[in-house]
Amino acid sequence: MKAEIVTIGRELLDGGRVDTNTSHLGARLAALGADVTRATTVPDDPKAIEEVLLRALGDADVVITTGGLGPTSDDRTKHVVARVLGRSLVLDDDTLERIAAHFEELGRPMPEINVAQAMIPEGARAIENTIGTAPGLLMEQDRTLFFVLPGVPAEMKRMVESYVVPFLEGRGLRRLTEERILRTTGVPESAIAEEIEGLTRKLARTEIAYTASATGVDVRVICRGDTPAEARRTADDAAERIGEKLGNAVYATGEEPIEQVVGYLLQMGKKTVAVAESCTGGRLGWRLTRIPGSSEYFVGGVIAYSDDLKKRLLGVRVKTLKDHGAVSEEAALEMAEGVRDKAHSDYGVAITGIAGPGGGDDEKPLGLVFVAVSWDRGERVERFRFSGGRDTVREMAAQAALDMLRRALL
Amino acid sequence: MKAEIVTIGRELLDGGRVDTNTSHLGARLAALGADVTRATTVPDDPKAIEEVLLRALGDADVVITTGGLGPTSDDRTKHVVARVLGRSLVLDDDTLERIAAHFEELGRPMPEINVAQAMIPEGARAIENTIGTAPGLLMEQDRTLFFVLPGVPAEMKRMVESYVVPFLEGRGLRRLTEERILRTTGVPESAIAEEIEGLTRKLARTEIAYTASATGVDVRVICRGDTPAEARRTADDAAERIGEKLGNAVYATGEEPIEQVVGYLLQMGKKTVAVAESCTGGRLGWRLTRIPGSSEYFVGGVIAYSDDLKKRLLGVRVKTLKDHGAVSEEAALEMAEGVRDKAHSDYGVAITGIAGPGGGDDEKPLGLVFVAVSWDRGERVERFRFSGGRDTVREMAAQAALDMLRRALL
Repeated sequence: MKAEIVTIGRELLDGGRVDTNTSHLGARLAALGADVTRATTVPDDPKAIEEVLLRALGDADVVITTGGLGPTSDDRTKHVVARVLGRSLVLDDDTLERIAAHFEELGRPMPEINVAQAMIPEGARAIENTIGTAPGLLMEQDRTLFFVLPGVPAEMKRMVESYVVPFLEGRGLRRLTEERILRTTGVPESAIAEEIEGLTRKLARTEIAYTASATGVDVRVICRGDTPAEARRTADDAAERIGEKLGNAVYATGEEPIEQVVGYLLQMGKKTVAVAESCTGGRLGWRLTRIPGSSEYFVGGVIAYSDDLKKRLLGVRVKTLKDHGAVSEEAALEMAEGVRDKAHSDYGVAITGIAGPGGGDDEKPLGLVFVAVSWDRGERVERFRFSGGRDTVREMAAQAALDMLRRALL
Repeated sequence: MKAEIVTIGRELLDGGRVDTNTSHLGARLAALGADVTRATTVPDDPKAIEEVLLRALGDADVVITTGGLGPTSDDRTKHVVARVLGRSLVLDDDTLERIAAHFEELGRPMPEINVAQAMIPEGARAIENTIGTAPGLLMEQDRTLFFVLPGVPAEMKRMVESYVVPFLEGRGLRRLTEERILRTTGVPESAIAEEIEGLTRKLARTEIAYTASATGVDVRVICRGDTPAEARRTADDAAERIGEKLGNAVYATGEEPIEQVVGYLLQMGKKTVAVAESCTGGRLGWRLTRIPGSSEYFVGGVIAYSDDLKKRLLGVRVKTLKDHGAVSEEAALEMAEGVRDKAHSDYGVAITGIAGPGGGDDEKPLGLVFVAVSWDRGERVERFRFSGGRDTVREMAAQAALDMLRRALL
């Protein structure tokens, strides 16, 4: 099954907007086992649209377009589609009713211009738009399936899930690849690859891909099967075996961020945490509180950006700052203990470091970060040396702190 | 001048990665007055690449490809380009030297596979890659300029700025459009449009575009001229007049984020600030500390997520919490005063609100946020009602706090 994607809009070509529709549609089609052979972007220009559609219709089994369905005069996709397929436009009563109801709900009269949106090519099926007014369209011609969808990503995605994917599944397209994601942090990509290389070479119909970012390496395990059930089994088995090999380095299987995993662990243990942040300036707190319900276990903390606040709000000793400096193992530990004490929390996590761009020297270079975790029965402190820009160093520091807290909780 | 963009890579078609190269190249080409007529994405498949290149060469004055230049066997662009243009590959000594030097710098032996990267089509110019190993290429054939660039966005961008744009300018392409950005926050798009509509209708050769996001509305002023100087003058004049009309709502002209503007104002006035954050969990602190050198004016603050910390670390009164609740004008003011007092800063900024998804009721609905600013000669508090998901509400709250601080500093 060959598929082509056509995205329409001047703004996608002059830098006004990044085209994310192609990637979304590509992922959904690939998951159904379709082979996406090409994606083309053209402006809202009838000739350009016509040319690309004629070519795609001759070549692909499925063509999906997005964009150019709005009520303004720029939006020409529907007329071009009708012409290319040799069909006239006819009024679709259901669609007109829906658009009228939409305006009634908004309490506004329906502008004349929106009536044109209810005109669809003869023989086309209108795909309901539950968010906006422009319906999508499905046509079949010479064994090619032709989906015409709106360009607004939310509207397009809704139609893909509610109509396009079920329709293609009904035509026998099945999910013959399955993906599992093992998320790791704190271990370099090369070390992970080395660790699992022997195993993955032995796994049949399994491909491994690595996605490295500032916050860690995601190991994507992609498996094929002759049936959907077989693909799922292969993927479950491969993910389990790779996960065992990587052990504690894996903080989640799936899309969960590490702050969610930490949240589970804190809730399970009925523990609370407070943070003391210097160079990260609040990033750790922000991340922990991204999880709904985090008030169950996160009490707050101190952003101790200045040395003065480290002393006054966290109780870091003058002597510590004088002898070792604010970026030191000793200061990190006192910050973690201090915030745990002030906030009456079970765990205290502290970050202090040199994020740059200025401030580093030979002894304490740029990117040097200390993270400490303190709790009633122990404490840990680690030294990191991160590289990248200011925000990258700070993001890596917050990630390392979340991982140290996770390991302390395990 | 017609331009086409071709991006190459399977991962761009199966949802593995969003293609941001097209948008970046499109913006740079459009700024030079080129008309980007089409962008196509194909997999790393020689036949697919060949087909799209042959078509583009017949149609466009400038063709730019990205992707498929790495050393692994997937990466086939160069071979296809050579074949399409009827050229053989020859060793480029300069490039080989550069690649060897790159590996020497890394302290690693150069793998044999990287030697292939120094082979370029006969008559092509190699474009130096200052970040990675694969060089870019420039060829001319039948009056078409043909740039072959790496797919890694950072490498591609570097070559565009250092080579492609200067080269095209040397060929007489000139920047005949100029853009100015007026950044606003806290005023709805419709209100801004209404305010400046009368004026902008009178401005010749000027187009206005609005980009609305959770943090505000950017007004893009796009002006044309018959010469680059005229375009610049028109843009400067239009931006100034629109800026006057919008007054204080504009916090920056250009790309500056509001935290940078706030930083300037604090530094100019030799003032310091501390933050007290409840629902934002550290976002305001993170944003203020994104600016290098922010330690000059940002001392830190308290993440007072729990009521207990609001009382103990900020001195919010029990009675206030009991009578008005933690999400109230009164609590916000006491938090701002409290943090200013504890941190010995000139300004204190506080945020308290209901970010959701749970926790709202009729009296205090989801998205309700209070922001307070306190300083030696005054205090202000405002009530906001934001909508969107949890993170959106929190980002809008941090943005509103930065804007209130800016206005207090003006």
